[in-house]
Order: sequence, then C-alpha cells, then structure tokens
Amino acid sequence: MKDSAETPPDPTELLVCTKCRRGRTEPGDDRWPGQVLFDALEALPLPEGVRLTPVECLQNCDHGCTVALRGGARWTYVFANVDEVVGAAMILDGAAQYHAQPDGLIPWRERPEHFKRNCVARIPPLEAPNV
Amino acid sequence: MKDSAETPPDPTELLVCTKCRRGRTEPGDDRWPGQVLFDALEALPLPEGVRLTPVECLQNCDHGCTVALRGGARWTYVFANVDEVVGAAMILDGAAQYHAQPDGLIPWRERPEHFKRNCVARIPPLEAPNV
Repeated sequence: MKDSAETPPDPTELLVCTKCRRGRTEPGDDRWPGQVLFDALEALPLPEGVRLTPVECLQNCDHGCTVALRGGARWTYVFANVDEVVGAAMILDGAAQYHAQPDGLIPWRERPEHFKRNCVARIPPLEAPNV
Repeated sequence: MKDSAETPPDPTELLVCTKCRRGRTEPGDDRWPGQVLFDALEALPLPEGVRLTPVECLQNCDHGCTVALRGGARWTYVFANVDEVVGAAMILDGAAQYHAQPDGLIPWRERPEHFKRNCVARIPPLEAPNV
C-alpha cells in the first residue's frame, strides 16, 4: 500500500533571469543585476526540493530583477522587482513555502509581502500532464 | 519509419483571464472585460492546433486584459493590455504564429506589434518533460 505521507512532493524550480539590467546601462561589478541575484541565490543553501535554474531573459525587462517558480502540479508564478542584493533570502523563504503547497498557492496571509505586491503573472498547472 | 513532416505539432493552449477588470469597478454589459475578451475569442474560428482555456485570474491585474500561450516544448508567453473589444483577432493571429514555432519563439520582425510591446513574462519549456 502506498503511503502518500512518505512520497516527497514534486520538485520546485526557481528560475532566475540572469540578463536582467534593471534599468542599468552598465553592469555593476562586471555583472548585471540579474547575475548578481543568481549568484546570491546560488551562495545560499537551497530549501529541500528546490532547484535553481538560470534563464537568459524572462522578458519582464521593465520590472526586473525577475524570478519564476514552477514544478509538478503547482501554478507557475512570476515575481518582479526583486532586489539583487538583499532579496535572495526572501526569495528562498518564499520558494520553500511554495514548495510546501501541492498547488503552489501560498495562503495569502502567509505569503511574503514582496510576493503579494510584485506578482507579474501566474499560470495554471497543465490539466492533463504529459499531453 | 516515422516521418516527422507528418507529425502534427503539439497543441497550443491560449489561456485567457476571464476575471480581468482592467481598472473597472463595475462590469460593462454585465461582463468583466476579461469575460468580454474570452467571449470574443470563443466566437471566432480558432487556428488549427490552438485551444482556448478560461482562467480565473492570471494575476496581472494592473495591466489587463491578459492572455498566455503555452504548449508542448514551447516557451510560455504572457501578454498584457489586450483590448477586449478589438484585440481578439490579433491574439488569434499571434497564437497561430506561436503554434507554428516548435519553441514558440516568433521571429521578432514577424511578431505582432502588440506582442513586442506587451510581453509581461516568458518562461522556458521544461528541460525534462514528465519529471
């Protein structure tokens, strides 16, 4: 008999736009803000079940830095205006909360304030996976 | 031997936010703008391979009406600021162009002007489907 309590949830993917310029015409320390954010995230311990994926342009260029969360049967979420210096830990906390929800819907009151105010879009899970 | 030329492309899904208010505090003809857009799309012949899906809130509420395109191994795209009265035909033309691209990347010069200026976000295809 399969015990669902022992089944780990589907993995969560944290996508980070590494080309984000966030209004700059030149990078800072030779890195664009998006790369600074990605490096900051990579330097921290990732929550269990969350993996990090660099993406060259999530095309939210006017409101970067931008990240997306997806995985399994969860809604995909896109969040904008992430501070590349101080935002990494907040994003990982939010990613852990997202990962804990089978549908990716973090209860509103528990949602990070940044997630509440900077959701660019959400996309429903595929109704019929593998089709 | 499988002839790839005879294999139809994976279906494309056109998602429409039916709850979009686009700044209104009351619906127009008893319908919210997002529903008006959905109804307009439903009344037109859909391009081959494109199916229409209503979604209750894509959470791009400040820049509606909003639609998304996804399907198969294509990038997912989210487009904002769609006019619910005159925008439907343009969206379907764009959906047909999107469907024709295995990766969903419509060449820039061929891309509808609205798609060029109102892309909210794009999300890469899953690298390992079914994982």
